[in-house]
Amino acid sequence: MANSTYQLHYWPTIQGRGEFVRLALEAAAADYVDVARGRTSQGEDLTDAAGMAAMMHIMNSPSVERPPFAPPFLVHGKTVVAQTSAILLYLGPRLGLVGKSETQRLWTHQLQLTIADAVTEAHDTHHPVATSLYYEDQKAEAAKRAKDFRTKRIPKYLHWFETVLERNSGGNSFLVGGRLSYADLSLFQLVDGLLYAFPKAARRALKKTPLVSALHQHVGQHRRLAAYLGSDRRIAFNESGIFRRYPELDA
Amino acid sequence: MANSTYQLHYWPTIQGRGEFVRLALEAAAADYVDVARGRTSQGEDLTDAAGMAAMMHIMNSPSVERPPFAPPFLVHGKTVVAQTSAILLYLGPRLGLVGKSETQRLWTHQLQLTIADAVTEAHDTHHPVATSLYYEDQKAEAAKRAKDFRTKRIPKYLHWFETVLERNSGGNSFLVGGRLSYADLSLFQLVDGLLYAFPKAARRALKKTPLVSALHQHVGQHRRLAAYLGSDRRIAFNESGIFRRYPELDA
Repeated sequence: MANSTYQLHYWPTIQGRGEFVRLALEAAAADYVDVARGRTSQGEDLTDAAGMAAMMHIMNSPSVERPPFAPPFLVHGKTVVAQTSAILLYLGPRLGLVGKSETQRLWTHQLQLTIADAVTEAHDTHHPVATSLYYEDQKAEAAKRAKDFRTKRIPKYLHWFETVLERNSGGNSFLVGGRLSYADLSLFQLVDGLLYAFPKAARRALKKTPLVSALHQHVGQHRRLAAYLGSDRRIAFNESGIFRRYPELDA
Repeated sequence: MANSTYQLHYWPTIQGRGEFVRLALEAAAADYVDVARGRTSQGEDLTDAAGMAAMMHIMNSPSVERPPFAPPFLVHGKTVVAQTSAILLYLGPRLGLVGKSETQRLWTHQLQLTIADAVTEAHDTHHPVATSLYYEDQKAEAAKRAKDFRTKRIPKYLHWFETVLERNSGGNSFLVGGRLSYADLSLFQLVDGLLYAFPKAARRALKKTPLVSALHQHVGQHRRLAAYLGSDRRIAFNESGIFRRYPELDA
């Protein structure tokens, strides 16, 4: 593969945090390899050298000067970068998914960091005690945390993004200026995940945030993104990922 | 105050996330105002117009195009930027607290984002169910989460930072290259907070991460930082902040 090919390293069976990077790569029609899934964006199989072993090698090899704390991480030429928001900070200008001014780039990143906070809180609804334990070992605590998340946090986050869309001087269709940025893709994914995991609570909140709801709709219809979402490259939501549908946690 | 003065907006009675920004401003001897505390870095009182009202105005005024989701946020000329890591991304080059290359800046930011994750987890030890509830209402859940944090997460985070220091080609004294960056200041604060909140567990972990322990020591002795830490501008750790000493959560 060419040196310019982006290598995304992430757990192969879940959307997880890797999905925020995948959406950016797919929306920009970037040349990338989803390494731990052993396939390229064109669906070609990689050699045996690829896959989980390659990912774990970078995680653990003493030869990597800047080791990832956790997946996802991106390898691009000599660059190895982890942390979803940092990966998107790196990719944004290269994929044309962020504005040119420092103000736009900083604001887009700030939005991304707030999405990341919401994603962590969504995760912690089913793992409020410890990631190292099963959900089944923390169901009682999960029920409490999920109630707070549904009734307070989802509305607060979506209301804030609604305000951002309302105040955008470039129009109400995108978060920053008048065109698609990586933050729009990530907000699409956050809303999509909330609708999967908390269909009742998310729909209730989205009724009060029509601009967020509209963004979720039209970003999902973006030509290249819609093609991706309809392909088998899009892993289905499942109960090993961040957004899990446990009916007992929704209301 | 001059247009070039940095205005930090944060809750006035806790270190919290604002402290990561304060440390950068103090270490660089920047001209800044701690707005909600109603005082400048020289200890002068501000006018009545300052204080909490100014902070809440920016939080709530429809005239702010890029509203903060939450404090801390920084106002600098026309820039309003929230999210601790984004604030430091903005301040780093301006305060000389980050290297010049894109590689160094991205890596420093990645380190900061990982520190931010650890800070969120430290917070959630005493608020595993809901930030909107008191600690007293979630003590049983806190005991469980704190145990996982002490035994698994603190060692994992500190071990990773130890690895970063070991592999730094610029030497083992700083996280990035051979000089102080905002990530070093933030790691100092993370360790300081862990030692306050979990003295037994943190000391135990630090024995296995001598480079992290040494960084905490020598950064705390940085001339300007030591002067700040010894001044009344440094708010003491307390049980309203992120790092809380609840003896029942340590072991």
